[in-house]
Amino acid sequence: MNILVTGSTGFIGKHLCEELKKKHSVFFLVRPHSSYEKLGANNEFFVFGNNNILELCKYIQDNDIEGIIHLASLYIQQHNAVDIPNLIHSNLYLGTAMLEAASTSNVKWFINTGTIWQNYNVLDYSNRYCPVNLYSATKQAFMDLAKFYSETTDIKICTLKLCDTYGPNDTRRKIYALFEENARTGELLKMSAGEQKIDILHVNDVVNGFVHLIEMLHDSGVIEDEYVLTSGRQLTLRELADEYEKKYEVKLNIEWGALPYRRREVMAPYKGNVLPGWKPINY
Amino acid sequence: MNILVTGSTGFIGKHLCEELKKKHSVFFLVRPHSSYEKLGANNEFFVFGNNNILELCKYIQDNDIEGIIHLASLYIQQHNAVDIPNLIHSNLYLGTAMLEAASTSNVKWFINTGTIWQNYNVLDYSNRYCPVNLYSATKQAFMDLAKFYSETTDIKICTLKLCDTYGPNDTRRKIYALFEENARTGELLKMSAGEQKIDILHVNDVVNGFVHLIEMLHDSGVIEDEYVLTSGRQLTLRELADEYEKKYEVKLNIEWGALPYRRREVMAPYKGNVLPGWKPINY
Repeated sequence: MNILVTGSTGFIGKHLCEELKKKHSVFFLVRPHSSYEKLGANNEFFVFGNNNILELCKYIQDNDIEGIIHLASLYIQQHNAVDIPNLIHSNLYLGTAMLEAASTSNVKWFINTGTIWQNYNVLDYSNRYCPVNLYSATKQAFMDLAKFYSETTDIKICTLKLCDTYGPNDTRRKIYALFEENARTGELLKMSAGEQKIDILHVNDVVNGFVHLIEMLHDSGVIEDEYVLTSGRQLTLRELADEYEKKYEVKLNIEWGALPYRRREVMAPYKGNVLPGWKPINY
Repeated sequence: MNILVTGSTGFIGKHLCEELKKKHSVFFLVRPHSSYEKLGANNEFFVFGNNNILELCKYIQDNDIEGIIHLASLYIQQHNAVDIPNLIHSNLYLGTAMLEAASTSNVKWFINTGTIWQNYNVLDYSNRYCPVNLYSATKQAFMDLAKFYSETTDIKICTLKLCDTYGPNDTRRKIYALFEENARTGELLKMSAGEQKIDILHVNDVVNGFVHLIEMLHDSGVIEDEYVLTSGRQLTLRELADEYEKKYEVKLNIEWGALPYRRREVMAPYKGNVLPGWKPINY
């Protein structure tokens, strides 16, 4: 299959593209300021700016793209007013342009990437919308825009909502990176009370989820609008730290309760409708 | 009250601002390319471009704005790929910037304008989302962005979903304008089969709806996320033409069935949750 990927230079994108290249022809959509030179000389890529949407249509047609994986996203935990143009552009315009281009060509399926943060404090399995932050609100808003294309075209559109993730070469300062640094330096790490539950999934499991969904979309079964990739277990941050200490036989120097919880801290992550036929194996 | 209005130069905006000025201090948000010189010299206005969101915050603070009425919108019945940047900018970015600015000030309420086209083929009173076109999808997407602000601030946010509208000085080529032209010129007007039902409301009723909702928001009652303004009757296009002929004692020269229905023609408009305490009086 010819597959076009956005966000290929990000943490999940890099791991996913490595896997996809084993079986498929992978095409990359990159933005003018991204580090796409790192993609290497053998890769096919299209630079998408503000005003070349018609060229994007042509690129997708000319390369006979069958499926699109839309990972590109601007993540901002707590935004400021000046972030809004970029949030809207990255999380709403780019994806809509992709779907529009897809609708003018033979694209069969489109995988969008969401977040379980679209469902703040949802403790049942309904997908009731309540955003943790403006970032997750843009993710929900994009699903509404995508709905127009799923209603008016034959493209199968599905959103994979991701929980927290970790794995090799993660440059985001996520929890395991903090633990690792703490174990190495021994410097005191101030944290919140640590009772928030964490659902954290290895990037290999995430990659397997995408690959599994691609197969489902390529076959002709019924696809729901959204599925969740979850580790299947929720440990509190303290339990996660204990586990880390045992697993790596280290001692973490953490002062629990030194910091307040974040505004709208997620205490119990959304579980949702897990992707059928897939389960995590790497934790 | 000090009220800030976007979209004040549009059809509904002009009528609404005329009414609001009788009781309130009205401030206008206009865009660089709008015809805001028509607003007249006595009016307070702010020109909102791409990058002056912090100035907008300051403007709203400095003028002690209590409420915002967000009417500005880019309406495109059937979009082309090249329309997408403007649709996203006008229908998603502008409103989000307004809410962000409102959240940094003492704004108490925010009225957003939606459309019954967000609920294509919804025949019950649920608000199940299904967009007629990309325009109505952007309207739904904006409600998701607004939800972030209603969850995280004290601003009361409510969307008024409008049906079709008519009235004096309507420069949009809507159905009554076509009838009027047809009655005057007698030239043959080619139309679809005309069995689609129309819910069309006089602009004075729309204005009364906004004024009534402002009162509800100013008082401290419970406000739902959205209400509908509807004429309360649904006539087919043919019945509407008959009514027009009788009312004005004219003969329309229409060839019914000469044109196909539009793609996703709305055959039965959404009824929804009508604004309580309001009803139309002008048809």
